[in-house]
Amino acid sequence: MLPLQLQPESQIPLYVQLRDQLWGLVHTGELRPGDRIPASRELAVKLGVHRTTVANAYAELESEGLIEGHVGRGTFIAENLPEHQFTPPPKSNGTGTMRWEALFADDRGEETLSRMMPTVPKDAIAFVTARPSEEFFPVEELRICCDTVLKRDGRRILQLGASDGYEPLKRALIEMLGKEEMVVRPEELLVTDGCQQALDLLCKAFLRPGDAVVLENPGYPGAIAIFTQARVRTLAAPMETSGARLGYAGVDLDALESVLLQNRMKLILETPDFQNPTGTSLPLEARRRLLGMAARHQVAVVEDHIYARLRVKGTFVPSLKALDRHGVVIQIDSFSKVAFPGLRVGWCIGPEKVIERLRLVKQATDLHSDQLAQATMAEFVKKGLMGKHLAKMKKVYKGRLEALDKSLERMMPGGTEWTRPEGGMSVWVTLPAGLDASEILHQMRLRGVLYIPGRYFYFQNPQPNTMRLGFAGVDEKQIVKGVAAMGELLQAELRKKERKPRREDGGARVALI
Amino acid sequence: MLPLQLQPESQIPLYVQLRDQLWGLVHTGELRPGDRIPASRELAVKLGVHRTTVANAYAELESEGLIEGHVGRGTFIAENLPEHQFTPPPKSNGTGTMRWEALFADDRGEETLSRMMPTVPKDAIAFVTARPSEEFFPVEELRICCDTVLKRDGRRILQLGASDGYEPLKRALIEMLGKEEMVVRPEELLVTDGCQQALDLLCKAFLRPGDAVVLENPGYPGAIAIFTQARVRTLAAPMETSGARLGYAGVDLDALESVLLQNRMKLILETPDFQNPTGTSLPLEARRRLLGMAARHQVAVVEDHIYARLRVKGTFVPSLKALDRHGVVIQIDSFSKVAFPGLRVGWCIGPEKVIERLRLVKQATDLHSDQLAQATMAEFVKKGLMGKHLAKMKKVYKGRLEALDKSLERMMPGGTEWTRPEGGMSVWVTLPAGLDASEILHQMRLRGVLYIPGRYFYFQNPQPNTMRLGFAGVDEKQIVKGVAAMGELLQAELRKKERKPRREDGGARVALI
Repeated sequence: MLPLQLQPESQIPLYVQLRDQLWGLVHTGELRPGDRIPASRELAVKLGVHRTTVANAYAELESEGLIEGHVGRGTFIAENLPEHQFTPPPKSNGTGTMRWEALFADDRGEETLSRMMPTVPKDAIAFVTARPSEEFFPVEELRICCDTVLKRDGRRILQLGASDGYEPLKRALIEMLGKEEMVVRPEELLVTDGCQQALDLLCKAFLRPGDAVVLENPGYPGAIAIFTQARVRTLAAPMETSGARLGYAGVDLDALESVLLQNRMKLILETPDFQNPTGTSLPLEARRRLLGMAARHQVAVVEDHIYARLRVKGTFVPSLKALDRHGVVIQIDSFSKVAFPGLRVGWCIGPEKVIERLRLVKQATDLHSDQLAQATMAEFVKKGLMGKHLAKMKKVYKGRLEALDKSLERMMPGGTEWTRPEGGMSVWVTLPAGLDASEILHQMRLRGVLYIPGRYFYFQNPQPNTMRLGFAGVDEKQIVKGVAAMGELLQAELRKKERKPRREDGGARVALI
Repeated sequence: MLPLQLQPESQIPLYVQLRDQLWGLVHTGELRPGDRIPASRELAVKLGVHRTTVANAYAELESEGLIEGHVGRGTFIAENLPEHQFTPPPKSNGTGTMRWEALFADDRGEETLSRMMPTVPKDAIAFVTARPSEEFFPVEELRICCDTVLKRDGRRILQLGASDGYEPLKRALIEMLGKEEMVVRPEELLVTDGCQQALDLLCKAFLRPGDAVVLENPGYPGAIAIFTQARVRTLAAPMETSGARLGYAGVDLDALESVLLQNRMKLILETPDFQNPTGTSLPLEARRRLLGMAARHQVAVVEDHIYARLRVKGTFVPSLKALDRHGVVIQIDSFSKVAFPGLRVGWCIGPEKVIERLRLVKQATDLHSDQLAQATMAEFVKKGLMGKHLAKMKKVYKGRLEALDKSLERMMPGGTEWTRPEGGMSVWVTLPAGLDASEILHQMRLRGVLYIPGRYFYFQNPQPNTMRLGFAGVDEKQIVKGVAAMGELLQAELRKKERKPRREDGGARVALI
């Protein structure tokens, strides 16, 4: 029997534990290419878990190329292990006597982020990223800004600086926010290394192990990683993506309210505009209701504002921060979705006492953010170049978003649903029940199309028939081509499934759920 | 009676709690200028603490200008509160209903770092920093490097990058380290935002609340801040600064061994070269003994290598990492003490499995370090400009270090001791018993001389008669002038103390300890 040990009390989903442990056994050589592994039903019984857990793990392992099924014979470790994903077991260095494993803080699922980015083969149509499209980066303008600030203020920029941010950048941001009708004082603004760091600082300032936060489910894996690492309990606010039940697509506020009623929460992380991964946005009334709820329950709302400037159609809706009458909102933001995510510069807006606390945490974390990046960004913003680039990118993204929506309409099989974002970078697709986005990914890759299966964005109840399509990095022609290939394959899959119920690896015939 | 509440079980020293709470009472207006506060003896009895605790707090508050003593009348809140340190009580914003205090993770002494940097008046001779001297920064050369990399690789630099670091920087560092006879593979190297962040990542990767680490005492306050914030227990390895007992000045290895024998520790943080604040270095034999101890007790050694390249005389001693035969050392490093600390770039070298773990933590913390800074630094190092600048700065610092040592020799009162570093940025001074470096600072400031009282570097048993003199930022003439002023004042203080035992604030005559 395989040496597998699942921990039901862990925050890491059981199927992820199982998947990772199987990878581990291959890494250590305990399982070798060609080895047979138990049928999912059999393993589920042995491990005392639900069969879906094993099925989910197997589905991923298959799509990752670690295992393969042979009709009538069972499931096996693949003869040709995928090279790009296969790390050989660590070499013993001969002299090492240190048992590092005993020193590490325990395993806490940090793998989420790295695992979700598949290696992208050249020429693939990759709907995988939520990054700004680098072919449009105004590199030359940025280079001139950088050169200007080094000539003007080099000595100051290159010396240690303030933990709350480089003053000229703070000024430039405050001026820009003023034009967006957000009045912000310097004491209410902290520069960070980006939104990921803003979340990390918030986690340190507010949360102790065992404290609880509400996260969107599905949501941004980077947030889940931070809170899991800090041993904070994460509770789910489910995302409604069809719009059928709530009258809108977005976070389910009834469910959120019931979480708040039943638990003592400290923070709600909410992305009201073009949420990653679903692309949904909260209507004005829902925003007001959310704020009222937070004030009533004395829970802070962390508003992820990173996609909000990428609205390409529809009506502007004020941010939670702009609507906040109770002082409950901390807004995190950056230009990383507009341009230059390689410059690690973001910011955080909140009540003065929150910002002061975050400043102290920031100081103890990394002293301050890189000043060359801050100074360069300040110049770029002040000269109006960021606004100009944003306007240009919104045109590009509008075209891509519309191409994607139209292509989905035309080419996806009946029963497929998807969200209708008015901006942002991603569309969330729900396939007809019975199709598994992870399983299909393998074949999709052979046809040169990539996406991220929806389950990577869930920290609870992963829905296997979902996927995120990131459209920002794919041009319109490619979008049409990619969706066509997807549609074709899905149609074929559906026909196959109609013809014959799938043969289970143990040999038993089962109906598809 | 004042609403003071000290928590003996807190990691924050009692005198710091008391000091901060008194500041707090002034902030909130509960204490006003001219208000009388209890004599230290009286307050000590009421609070149930040792009198030294109150005396320490009062000494600091006096040097900070918050309180003043009037002979025969007692101690009072100063009539003219120091403006630069006085933050007015937070304004109520009228609409806010959020009780943020209830949401923060508890107070954990993060103030250390910000409090220790006094505001430096213009023209003061400030022995306060351990920063590289910015007037020598080769800004123009750096600007050209920056321009070159943006022209050559702009698009790649400005897009998201790898969590372990920008590949060309990793290559440049590995090449440079090779010339320093350190063979490092790419999998053993992680780029960080500097040593402060390296410590933060190590803390996350290794430590859970309640775990224990050994820190040098006195040591780097930034390290203390990180571990305190993470609720990690910090145990002290005392620094011997006179050399009298151990035959050398440096960490007391006997004391360290007894800590290791009595406690289950995870990490030892050690700065073998030109330790901040004492300037001491470990001899070769002591390094070997330390490594043996760590291996025997299965404790990781985190070697802070940040000052090591600043050796200006004496014989080179290999780093702990270079001497490590057991694979117990993780080395953290950066160029921040050589040049450009405003570029947040450092690195960390360790066994592959440690680096892989740190990479995952780094990813969940801030995705990756700023790539413009990394690319620019890579170019600067590759072109040999860092080596050239280092050589130049060593000459400058050698002159300053010698000027300081000679001035101390000539001008300090008998009974003063100080360390004799062969490099680095600071000299540690122990004043004759009975003198308090915090108390004297106030008068020293009036004479235009600043230093950091030693107590800010202790997390246990602060020695009031110690101070750190950072010489890197002060030119030779100023050093002579500054030490002369210090010497004069100290002589006068000693004469005063000989003439009349100090009158205690309650009016009682007490002998000085």
